[in-house]
Amino acid sequence: MKVDGQPYRTIWLSADGRSVSVIDQTLLPHVFKVVAWRTLEDVVAGIRNMVVRGAPLIGASAGYGIALAMSADPSDKAFEYAYQALFASRPTAANLRWALDRMRSVLLPLAPSERTSVAFATARNIADEDVANCSAIGEHGKALIQQAWDSVQRSRPVNILTHCNAGWLATVDWGTALAPIYKAFDTGIPVHVWVDETRPRNQGASLTAWELGHHGVPHTVIVDNAGGHIMQNGKVDLCIVGSDRTTAGGDVCNKIGTYLKALAAHDNQVPFYVALPVSTIDWTIEDGVKSIPIETRAPEEVTVISGLTSDGKVESVQLTPQGSAALNYAFDVTPRRFVTGLVTEFGVFPPLPEEMTKLREEAEKQR
Amino acid sequence: MKVDGQPYRTIWLSADGRSVSVIDQTLLPHVFKVVAWRTLEDVVAGIRNMVVRGAPLIGASAGYGIALAMSADPSDKAFEYAYQALFASRPTAANLRWALDRMRSVLLPLAPSERTSVAFATARNIADEDVANCSAIGEHGKALIQQAWDSVQRSRPVNILTHCNAGWLATVDWGTALAPIYKAFDTGIPVHVWVDETRPRNQGASLTAWELGHHGVPHTVIVDNAGGHIMQNGKVDLCIVGSDRTTAGGDVCNKIGTYLKALAAHDNQVPFYVALPVSTIDWTIEDGVKSIPIETRAPEEVTVISGLTSDGKVESVQLTPQGSAALNYAFDVTPRRFVTGLVTEFGVFPPLPEEMTKLREEAEKQR
Repeated sequence: MKVDGQPYRTIWLSADGRSVSVIDQTLLPHVFKVVAWRTLEDVVAGIRNMVVRGAPLIGASAGYGIALAMSADPSDKAFEYAYQALFASRPTAANLRWALDRMRSVLLPLAPSERTSVAFATARNIADEDVANCSAIGEHGKALIQQAWDSVQRSRPVNILTHCNAGWLATVDWGTALAPIYKAFDTGIPVHVWVDETRPRNQGASLTAWELGHHGVPHTVIVDNAGGHIMQNGKVDLCIVGSDRTTAGGDVCNKIGTYLKALAAHDNQVPFYVALPVSTIDWTIEDGVKSIPIETRAPEEVTVISGLTSDGKVESVQLTPQGSAALNYAFDVTPRRFVTGLVTEFGVFPPLPEEMTKLREEAEKQR
Repeated sequence: MKVDGQPYRTIWLSADGRSVSVIDQTLLPHVFKVVAWRTLEDVVAGIRNMVVRGAPLIGASAGYGIALAMSADPSDKAFEYAYQALFASRPTAANLRWALDRMRSVLLPLAPSERTSVAFATARNIADEDVANCSAIGEHGKALIQQAWDSVQRSRPVNILTHCNAGWLATVDWGTALAPIYKAFDTGIPVHVWVDETRPRNQGASLTAWELGHHGVPHTVIVDNAGGHIMQNGKVDLCIVGSDRTTAGGDVCNKIGTYLKALAAHDNQVPFYVALPVSTIDWTIEDGVKSIPIETRAPEEVTVISGLTSDGKVESVQLTPQGSAALNYAFDVTPRRFVTGLVTEFGVFPPLPEEMTKLREEAEKQR
């Protein structure tokens, strides 16, 4: 998407053809900076330190990490070292192992002398396929925004609420939840986005607000507490969020607080859509509340926050009194009965048994 | 309640008998400081700058403000000047006009020479009556916590979720939503409180966590996003919140985000109680969503936050990117169908027509 008029992806081969460029997401929203990765070690550190984040982007980064490793030493031993180093950089990221296994199956049968160029090409394919998936999610979701616009006789912008960041910064381009919004905006459908700040890590207030703002999409940041009130008062036409993991039954595990927004949408007859690539569906489990373990993260993410001081420094401040404990659940599960539809690269599927079966068949056909 | 073992109210006549002591709430939770008000001007500035906040405490403060004014000049003219100055200090605070009118009706019939001592006594009565109301709310609410404890066979602490600060800091003592918790704790019922941080002003993470911690009540701070998840997983036995304004029908206007917690409680069969003095019920309106206007406050409350730096300074930092707008609704309305009961000084009343009529009759009887 665009940053002040200039098109960007989150990761690309640099003009020198030998290094990989990424946007340093740890500095957003206050500083926009592109950094170059020249070695395997740069990529491992970048993934570990969350210079890049979001499962699809981590997958593409791992692909390029292997390519940089191969350009230094294309031996089997160097490959295995790179595989292990990258895998250990963020072991819970779902796409990481998938991307590494793909690189292995493509590269190891080749003679070492051929590996570097094929590795760069394969990493590029991983990135391009993610862009194509997100673009398809965007097209299917755009149709829903178009319907919402038509249903208000095109008299005013369509108001869309989103939670966390499932935008292009979490993928290679387009994003998942934000892809439909960019597609609608780019084709002239007037949209306005309510951006949940998304405590504790504030990915909404920082990343989503930043990317919408720099692409030019009208938006307003609200605290996570406000979504119920604005839905109750007719200020939201539809919600679109992303998903970290979706069950075979259609239960959605996503950033903490998603469930509360789904409850409010349900209580006020606001459609609640979840945008996701089918690769994030876990077909082995049905009931998300029972079967998905919810990780807790460091309490300091709740008790300490960082931002920009009036003299332009990024500083952390403590919010809670000394001695008060905090608990930090990272995700929650939204039961399928509150989900209007799953917006995938294969179309929009309500989380009903027969529809989920159809979606699974589509996904298996294309594999 | 206690601060590290020492009993406190939020406002009291100082030992010198001529000044009024209050806890400076603008410095909490990082600094605990008692300041003395010696003049009308001190009180006006203290109310305006939110050294004191919460409707009952503002009412008591206004009473003492009149008393300080009378001790300097007990004339009719000085009374009217003080009345206007105090009223203008926080014109939307409901109890402010009520307390000022009460002071007027008591003082103006008296000879100026008698006014000062009666003014101090009346201010003290206003404070004492608030303490008695909150204490009664606490007793009625304690019975609900006792029931919850009994229903888990006294096998573990009762888990209670609260939103914002409806504690003793918002009143003269005990608080409203927290009064039942203090009463239960003080009589040995084991409790654990989930404290919503309550963005954007973070009254939960700062004031509620501070007062529970210093009284010794076990508690854990969570982000506002987490309440749904913990209710869905059986970690909350009941919710208790306060109310800024309740309708004759039982709809509850309270801090933004209350409605989302009520939805989650409803979806998970968790009882949702609202603690309030009947003086905050507006008997002239029925439907809160339709009839209660919701104020918006400065967007900077969303985009900028303050806390303690690692070197012990209180500093403000900006959270959002340059150019992103924010909107800041201060309250929301929880429809009565999500409210299990109103916990008042007259008992617990489910928000049903016949119960609301009974409550109104009780309130009118005692007037």
